[in-house]
Amino acid sequence: MHARLLNPRGAPVRQAGVRAHNLALVLRHVAGAATPPSRAAIAAATGLTRATVSALVDDLVAGTLLTELTPAPRAGAGRPAVGLALSPDGPAGLGLEVNVDYLSAAVVDFTGHVRHRVVRHLDQRPAGADRTLQHLSRLAGEALTRAGTDGLTIAGGALAVPGLVTGDLVKVAPNLDWRDVDPIALLRRATTFKDIPLTVDNEANLAALGELHATPGTPTFVYISGEIGIGAGIVVDGALFRGVRGFSGEIGHIPVHPDGPACRCGARGCLEQYAGQEAILRAAGVPLTGRPDESLATLAAWAAAGDATTLTALAGAATALGTAVSTVVNLLDVDTVILGGSYAPLLPWLHDGVNLEIARRVLTAAWTPVTIQAATLGPSAAVTGAGDSVIRTIRDDPATWLSRR
Amino acid sequence: MHARLLNPRGAPVRQAGVRAHNLALVLRHVAGAATPPSRAAIAAATGLTRATVSALVDDLVAGTLLTELTPAPRAGAGRPAVGLALSPDGPAGLGLEVNVDYLSAAVVDFTGHVRHRVVRHLDQRPAGADRTLQHLSRLAGEALTRAGTDGLTIAGGALAVPGLVTGDLVKVAPNLDWRDVDPIALLRRATTFKDIPLTVDNEANLAALGELHATPGTPTFVYISGEIGIGAGIVVDGALFRGVRGFSGEIGHIPVHPDGPACRCGARGCLEQYAGQEAILRAAGVPLTGRPDESLATLAAWAAAGDATTLTALAGAATALGTAVSTVVNLLDVDTVILGGSYAPLLPWLHDGVNLEIARRVLTAAWTPVTIQAATLGPSAAVTGAGDSVIRTIRDDPATWLSRR
Repeated sequence: MHARLLNPRGAPVRQAGVRAHNLALVLRHVAGAATPPSRAAIAAATGLTRATVSALVDDLVAGTLLTELTPAPRAGAGRPAVGLALSPDGPAGLGLEVNVDYLSAAVVDFTGHVRHRVVRHLDQRPAGADRTLQHLSRLAGEALTRAGTDGLTIAGGALAVPGLVTGDLVKVAPNLDWRDVDPIALLRRATTFKDIPLTVDNEANLAALGELHATPGTPTFVYISGEIGIGAGIVVDGALFRGVRGFSGEIGHIPVHPDGPACRCGARGCLEQYAGQEAILRAAGVPLTGRPDESLATLAAWAAAGDATTLTALAGAATALGTAVSTVVNLLDVDTVILGGSYAPLLPWLHDGVNLEIARRVLTAAWTPVTIQAATLGPSAAVTGAGDSVIRTIRDDPATWLSRR
Repeated sequence: MHARLLNPRGAPVRQAGVRAHNLALVLRHVAGAATPPSRAAIAAATGLTRATVSALVDDLVAGTLLTELTPAPRAGAGRPAVGLALSPDGPAGLGLEVNVDYLSAAVVDFTGHVRHRVVRHLDQRPAGADRTLQHLSRLAGEALTRAGTDGLTIAGGALAVPGLVTGDLVKVAPNLDWRDVDPIALLRRATTFKDIPLTVDNEANLAALGELHATPGTPTFVYISGEIGIGAGIVVDGALFRGVRGFSGEIGHIPVHPDGPACRCGARGCLEQYAGQEAILRAAGVPLTGRPDESLATLAAWAAAGDATTLTALAGAATALGTAVSTVVNLLDVDTVILGGSYAPLLPWLHDGVNLEIARRVLTAAWTPVTIQAATLGPSAAVTGAGDSVIRTIRDDPATWLSRR
């Protein structure tokens, strides 16, 4: 499932593309090294000659993708080796997110560090796609201004949406009531974006990719985004599993009780009706004020205070979520489930209930435990993953980036 | 997810393994050709030189993997080109299957053709692993005798079981009540197998691989095996998706009603309790005689005759199956679902009910229809796929086979 630059199955081995392959190889080695490696160390680790490595590193430094660190003085003979690291001044990614109850923008630099992030909490359902994306353009403008102050070049932007995306089109986002929306065309009406390339993807997919890069020791997992809607990103062997048409991961519409309450998707008894953010708030009796971030804080406070109704609401959500997670594990045999969105702060009250259903329903649970953990990137996983996805494209194929400068 | 012989991600390109790669390339080209190709045609299609192709073909013919067909006389000048085809006298695979209510053995020749198949219908639950595998050894002996009469060399055997397999161990087969059974050790007590290498895998996985090779135009699908238990094999881009530990595809334990009847797995309300073969037979009032093949024939006859109770039973199973299939499609975004085992002959009475649930529950169903079809290999998909898996190992890596002769 990885993109491979050379030798796809069945093709003869060719020389063309070798430099591109080796540039990516060097960049990957530096990105993954525990301490900044020298040219000699890169040569030893990759099997390339020192002359080849030096030429490649020179190109990567000139292209602002790598930076040379001032060597520490050392006691022994000879010139101390210069260490190489990803450049914090290299191309940066703009992350954008539309969710049902907030908008967000973030700037992620070439090292993967989040340099700026802004969030506006507001129910987007009354606004419609047009006004929502106008609002997001203004937020993006703030982020771009701050990136400019830092001297960063924005290489591209990625938009996370809670819906099904094909190409640049949002086919359907049930909780926003969007159908066949072209968000990039709407964003481009604002002058904010000028020549910045933009892409759009499902928010759980982008969040899952963000988590993958934030926790590289876990190459296979299911990321579950618990918002008003519930989505999942499936990561297998370090790559996103998108399905045949890119629509995988719709865990929010797993039926918990097939004849249960009606869902925005048109079906009945979907997981979102039992474990979606608003379903939990309603069951706990928390007032829905139009500021779901405040309602969520109230919910967590009531749970921490031991309010019985709140704890019952969370236990019910945990059982429903655990039933759906068991289905995912039985089908896909993943051993790690990462809970993000509003599930991240609520994990203390969800963890045991989810685990109980797994123990009941997963055939392999007795001898191969499933780990349930909160998203490392917390509730901002999607917007961070979106910005990160831009720089990953360059990290995976630096030759194309260098050739375009 | 394919095994690649050369240039795994991150490794420098090496010459070693080029012959092995090219042997597989030539064999794959011959296997996929519409008409038997000549050496010149193989050279043109693969980009290899004619001299290289001739040397490789000579090795493959000497190893009985390819055969040269007598050329048809032709009118033009020059020697007519010899066509090449997979050899029906090449190494053959022995497929074995233990299921809850039958045992089966099959011999699949190197072209993928089933040369012999035997089935014994008998409820295996009272027998236990030991006696079941003794019985299977005798069945295998019959198949091997017939293969010998045909002059076939058995390259290996693969055993399909309705349970979770890790390495050679069946961790659990709930409907057989097997736990931590080593079936290969038990089979090897019989002299039948002598030096034949044996492997074991989940029956739905082997059936899915069999279907993949029988219908090469459909590289992504979910195969659902409807027996007393219900399993699935997930095929993505022409390769089996096994999950982290090889336990993927346990669709039979998707909860349909989370508080429903107790299942053999220990949970409640699993799909098997609504759409498993015995659940359908019971709901239809067909007597369970210990010969489920006869009961199934009765069920189909009653359905064909329009018996109301039988049609209600099948409609209920179709709704439950459709609910589970919708979950699979929402999660994995597959566009084809293949129904095998007893579902293949029952498809006329399941099709509409499954489709109705998909239309109700799958978010993408309105604009990207899901195809539901019966297994091409019918109820023998698993044992055929098992035999086929042996020859696929040789087809994918002929160099190893040739070096061992």
